[in-house]
Amino acid sequence: MEIRACIFDVFGTTVDWRSSVSRDLAAFAKQKAIVNIDWLRFADEWRAMYQPSMEEVRSGRRPWAILDALHMESLAALIGRYAISGLSQADLEYMNRAWHRLDPWPDVVEGLTRLKAKMIVAPCSNGNIALMVNMAKRAGLPWDCILGAETARAYKPMPEAYLAACRHLALPPAQVMMVAAHNGDLKAAKAQGLATAFVPRPTEHGAGQKTDLAADPACVDLPVKSFVELAEKLGC
Amino acid sequence: MEIRACIFDVFGTTVDWRSSVSRDLAAFAKQKAIVNIDWLRFADEWRAMYQPSMEEVRSGRRPWAILDALHMESLAALIGRYAISGLSQADLEYMNRAWHRLDPWPDVVEGLTRLKAKMIVAPCSNGNIALMVNMAKRAGLPWDCILGAETARAYKPMPEAYLAACRHLALPPAQVMMVAAHNGDLKAAKAQGLATAFVPRPTEHGAGQKTDLAADPACVDLPVKSFVELAEKLGC
Repeated sequence: MEIRACIFDVFGTTVDWRSSVSRDLAAFAKQKAIVNIDWLRFADEWRAMYQPSMEEVRSGRRPWAILDALHMESLAALIGRYAISGLSQADLEYMNRAWHRLDPWPDVVEGLTRLKAKMIVAPCSNGNIALMVNMAKRAGLPWDCILGAETARAYKPMPEAYLAACRHLALPPAQVMMVAAHNGDLKAAKAQGLATAFVPRPTEHGAGQKTDLAADPACVDLPVKSFVELAEKLGC
Repeated sequence: MEIRACIFDVFGTTVDWRSSVSRDLAAFAKQKAIVNIDWLRFADEWRAMYQPSMEEVRSGRRPWAILDALHMESLAALIGRYAISGLSQADLEYMNRAWHRLDPWPDVVEGLTRLKAKMIVAPCSNGNIALMVNMAKRAGLPWDCILGAETARAYKPMPEAYLAACRHLALPPAQVMMVAAHNGDLKAAKAQGLATAFVPRPTEHGAGQKTDLAADPACVDLPVKSFVELAEKLGC
């Protein structure tokens, strides 16, 4: 079956959230004279609140909320935990938008540009539309459209997050390839009939990363080293 | 207030649906040896069924349905009216996708490309996501994302169609400019607080067009002659 679209996980797979968030916040802290904070640890703790915050929505315990809103709640809690004081609402908004200012891994723009010449490329991320659009404009990500949680009104790994992306492209799941650095994401996509590609990002969580170092053959159709190799393997 | 995004009507404003649909169907008819049909008239009749078909959804008389589905129902009715026989389901699907293969007006790609360098550009069309994506890839429309009826689950001119686009971009309506060749579309957008620009398309309906030949000052903030002039006026 010919692949007509590749849809991509974004945080970790397309962009290096950990380096980017910590660098962005460290620069902001310097301006604001906030000292003695390990911003890599801060970024890790913020990210650790990501799955639990979405689980409140997935479980139905709270109504639909976009990721910018969940990120903001987690940030407010973290600011309290670190006892950072004196920040305005505008400061918090700026810090929360660090997630809109993430840098891509070095192979991403070339790979996406090559893929885009022959097929549809779109994010299938838990990030909301504004987050994805602002990130893409800053980072030069040449998406054809923005798909994902806000369009589906469902967070991955719920089946609807993958199925809505296929439906919105009017393509059968077998013609859509989910690309991620996380085997769990690909397992959930494959269960809905999508094709899957794994791209390792062995430093997403820093030098000591222990998870997702290699593709799980049970759920990965195409293991590749980079977005550029993905383009080559798909004939782009 | 600085404009941060321009959102565009598509059928008529961005692309020349009448010439494109009639040319596309005429070429298909030649292949299939279907003769003695005025395809311009056929395109006009198909388009005449567009507003009534959406009104069924807007009114709540039928559940949400995307434009590809409404177009297909109208096409089936027209095929009957013209007593065209011998078409397979695949033939009908191909004909229906004529709406995915529309050509832009000559100023569109340059204007959008210039605008995109400084702000977000997106369709705000009643066309569904797949229709907009396939059209954009064929015509080279450099959208940042696809907004409109399917993302809003509301057809223009309902308020939600405009408000959802602003919300999805996380921008206040006053920072979003709706661009259209139809005063009615701009009137509805302005009522929701969006900025508005009018681009005349005096041959959208053919040489004898009588409607929307000029901007209505009551609802148009910025009358321009083309997408290129729009880019210039917005400092792009």
